[in-house]
Amino acid sequence: MTSFPSLAALRAACLDLPAGDAAAAAAAADRDAKLTKPPGSLGRLEDLAVWLAQWQARTPPRLDRIEVLVFAGNHGVVAQGVSAFPAGVTAQMVANFAAGGAAINQLAAIARARLRVVPLNLDRPTADFTKAPAMDEDAFLCAVATGDDAVPADADLICLGEMGIGNTTAAAAIAAALFGGGGVRWAGRGTGIDDHGLARKRAAIDMALGRHAGILGDPLLVAAALGGRELAAILGAAMAARRQRIPVLIDGFVCTAALAPLAKLRSDALAHAVAAHVSAEAAHRALLDELGLKPLVDLGMRLGEASGAAVAALILRAAVACHTGMATFAEAGVSDKL
Amino acid sequence: MTSFPSLAALRAACLDLPAGDAAAAAAAADRDAKLTKPPGSLGRLEDLAVWLAQWQARTPPRLDRIEVLVFAGNHGVVAQGVSAFPAGVTAQMVANFAAGGAAINQLAAIARARLRVVPLNLDRPTADFTKAPAMDEDAFLCAVATGDDAVPADADLICLGEMGIGNTTAAAAIAAALFGGGGVRWAGRGTGIDDHGLARKRAAIDMALGRHAGILGDPLLVAAALGGRELAAILGAAMAARRQRIPVLIDGFVCTAALAPLAKLRSDALAHAVAAHVSAEAAHRALLDELGLKPLVDLGMRLGEASGAAVAALILRAAVACHTGMATFAEAGVSDKL
Repeated sequence: MTSFPSLAALRAACLDLPAGDAAAAAAAADRDAKLTKPPGSLGRLEDLAVWLAQWQARTPPRLDRIEVLVFAGNHGVVAQGVSAFPAGVTAQMVANFAAGGAAINQLAAIARARLRVVPLNLDRPTADFTKAPAMDEDAFLCAVATGDDAVPADADLICLGEMGIGNTTAAAAIAAALFGGGGVRWAGRGTGIDDHGLARKRAAIDMALGRHAGILGDPLLVAAALGGRELAAILGAAMAARRQRIPVLIDGFVCTAALAPLAKLRSDALAHAVAAHVSAEAAHRALLDELGLKPLVDLGMRLGEASGAAVAALILRAAVACHTGMATFAEAGVSDKL
Repeated sequence: MTSFPSLAALRAACLDLPAGDAAAAAAAADRDAKLTKPPGSLGRLEDLAVWLAQWQARTPPRLDRIEVLVFAGNHGVVAQGVSAFPAGVTAQMVANFAAGGAAINQLAAIARARLRVVPLNLDRPTADFTKAPAMDEDAFLCAVATGDDAVPADADLICLGEMGIGNTTAAAAIAAALFGGGGVRWAGRGTGIDDHGLARKRAAIDMALGRHAGILGDPLLVAAALGGRELAAILGAAMAARRQRIPVLIDGFVCTAALAPLAKLRSDALAHAVAAHVSAEAAHRALLDELGLKPLVDLGMRLGEASGAAVAALILRAAVACHTGMATFAEAGVSDKL
């Protein structure tokens, strides 16, 4: 477990990230060119195999162990009436994950992935960020370290996700702080709030932007003041994965917002990560565009729980299966081009 | 095996298709509404579960047996220089399928699907349709019957695909005949032809449209005169699946063009089918739009072989897993909305 004694130490770690393995990527691309298919005809499946090789620093890439990490947290800002569900649902859903009844349980099984759920102090919500920073430095660093610690060294792929009533409000606040536009640009329906709730959500975000105006230029302070414990853990997990050469699938809007501060600190900080999907939460596409991320699928999902990441993991399995299992033109005795 | 003694008998069969099971669909939608997630938050996964129930006439739907059917044929029009690969590659790839070395072998395995490859008279290409109808009535009906016969009665889902050097030219000719716009609208790069080849491909399509102008108003005559054996087999297989209450995943441009005559005959003829993906072959999106089909994924694939359908089958597995495996709000003790 890597713990960070201070925000300065965390910031330094965020800036000191290993590069991908260019030789592994080149070897994967070389193999891809020899497989029995017209060049490029598997589209993104080809890119994904090369990307996995690059960030696993291994050719061929493998997906023997896929780990789905779902971080859960509670949010003081729900006091502002920003969610369609009561805050108690976070803990109830964590129990549902443990019992195997949630969507992510079924999707992780289909993807042959291990699921680990990490609740972060559910009985101690963050502060209402319209009134105070959501987390102080200690609480933020502790959540980051929890995420860091959750990444198993032998994983071949990490699917990051979250559960937390109120956390699309935190995500929207982070996006607004980093990219501008205010509540009107970034607040969406979340789990299904009505027009009045949407107005309250926008107002809460704008109030928070005003209250924390002094720190909006510092991405890590934004993550602490406007985020949440599960978002901080996602940030920590993504950094730990990068250090340990484990590629990452990013789930939906909340997960993307949790990682956006890293990209603000260093433009290539998410190069080892792929956006699994674009959520039906309207602001997600705008956020992916701001980050230059191209989602793998667009299935109108907006559940969180790493559900989109688990679906995308199936596509990565398809990519690796083709890359490793297909015959070359020479092996199969198939004619190359005319 | 259903064989059709005449085009008139086939046309009658194409018009006499069973409806979906509204009660099964309603029961699936009812269960979906009780599952532990915000309503609608699984997006198209929810729609797919309901659609499978409707067309399997069974609730809950199941995917115990997924059958991938790849039909292969050869095309006289390759004499016009319309493909980047020699015609012999069709048989070489059929051998590669048998040996397990092609992309679809890997993808079918990942989807836990059975793969069956059906070559149709590879040593007897269709006629060059710039000079004569690709198939006479007997040859066309025989290929349709082969496709019909290939559908196993106990399948829960059929993934339709094809292999055939030159068959994007046939597909483009069918699309042009049914929807207008000529070679310039529908001809694409196929397996990777250069500018000169693309010009030849467009010219061949326009020449065919002129030669067969008299039959362009009859979708089945279009399929016979401008299609190919593997396209006719796909048409037959889709009809057989509808009769036997087996939903269908449509692969790429060629597969979609093979089924377009059915939709022209009867607007709901493809209601039991979902477009698996949109191909990088540019005309595919236009053809899906003409048919009102919304593809499940867009991964830049353009290989054929049912490769896109097999990837989409993974998403259907995800949909069924969530639908059948998730707990209800009552079972999990999770609070409903505020």
